[in-house]
Amino acid sequence: MQAATRQFIIVGHRAATSGDFPLNDMPGSAGRIDILARCLTAAFLTSFSIRRDTRVWLVLLGEPDPPKSVRFEGSQLKYLNPDERSTGALIKKALKVDAHEGEGCSMRGIYTQRANLRDILQQIDASDVVYLHEEGVDVREVTLDPHHATFVLGDHLGLLDDEEDLLSHSKRISVGPVKLHADHCITIVHNELDRLCLRS
Amino acid sequence: MQAATRQFIIVGHRAATSGDFPLNDMPGSAGRIDILARCLTAAFLTSFSIRRDTRVWLVLLGEPDPPKSVRFEGSQLKYLNPDERSTGALIKKALKVDAHEGEGCSMRGIYTQRANLRDILQQIDASDVVYLHEEGVDVREVTLDPHHATFVLGDHLGLLDDEEDLLSHSKRISVGPVKLHADHCITIVHNELDRLCLRS
Repeated sequence: MQAATRQFIIVGHRAATSGDFPLNDMPGSAGRIDILARCLTAAFLTSFSIRRDTRVWLVLLGEPDPPKSVRFEGSQLKYLNPDERSTGALIKKALKVDAHEGEGCSMRGIYTQRANLRDILQQIDASDVVYLHEEGVDVREVTLDPHHATFVLGDHLGLLDDEEDLLSHSKRISVGPVKLHADHCITIVHNELDRLCLRS
Repeated sequence: MQAATRQFIIVGHRAATSGDFPLNDMPGSAGRIDILARCLTAAFLTSFSIRRDTRVWLVLLGEPDPPKSVRFEGSQLKYLNPDERSTGALIKKALKVDAHEGEGCSMRGIYTQRANLRDILQQIDASDVVYLHEEGVDVREVTLDPHHATFVLGDHLGLLDDEEDLLSHSKRISVGPVKLHADHCITIVHNELDRLCLRS
């Protein structure tokens, strides 16, 4: 893997793990894939560009074939539109890839493997992992390296106890006084890091 | 209209103005209604709730029947899900309402009228209107009243010259060093106001 300065890992506990879910029902029968689609666009898109310094893992744990993780490389992505449906279609295509031996590639910059949160954390430098959590320290009151940081977020279910155990040594950081959806948290984190980059 | 402390006006220059657009093609034949749908959810939704103190106007200027404006009242809304498709369906339903005489109501908290940006600005207290613009003053460097503020945003086309003329006396504020999509700007503005509320 090439260096990416900002990494986001989002866990979808009920997210479908086969590529046959209906794009018309991402919140329902696809197990809240809509949440993951919004997190992707929040992580990668600026007004007219893709954030090339960003990497995202979606960890999908729903039926019928969990676990699967899809890695999106900002440095390589060719297409990512802001709408939820076309982003859901990218996830759908990624889930059709054979991921039995290492990573399968569905499209430039999109890689699927059989992995859960523990597996992904083992693949990265865990020293800089931040758990985004509403009871964490305010993001404006901590020291972050805008060029080297990894953020873990839960879906509408948050993170489960055994997943939180994996992050017991990680900083817990919140994005402000109001509890927000995962994609909105990503937007605010990027804004904070953009400001830090300007100052550094 | 009841008091709302935070107001957002988003202009969709090509957004469809009849309720027969396809939900499967909001970025295309619906004229970027997807942008407006995302702005709505960014404006109203927190993790498990609707922001009751928020009001949104969507100004739709596309074919076949412009202009139309749809007002969403956080204090009254019963349902708003985070996914783009169901939010698009609310807009679609609102555009089917007869708006020839005053406002038509498609659902509790959702009102449609024949109005463009100028009309909407005339209906509100224009003294506190802020134009969100990438060349504005940083939102962290201005004084905002978190209990009384109105923000105007353009879609992917920004605002046109004659619309900008309407805002010639308004503050121009930016959300940070990187130019972002309208919905991401709304998320950051809310975060800033949430923090101000905490301090005030």
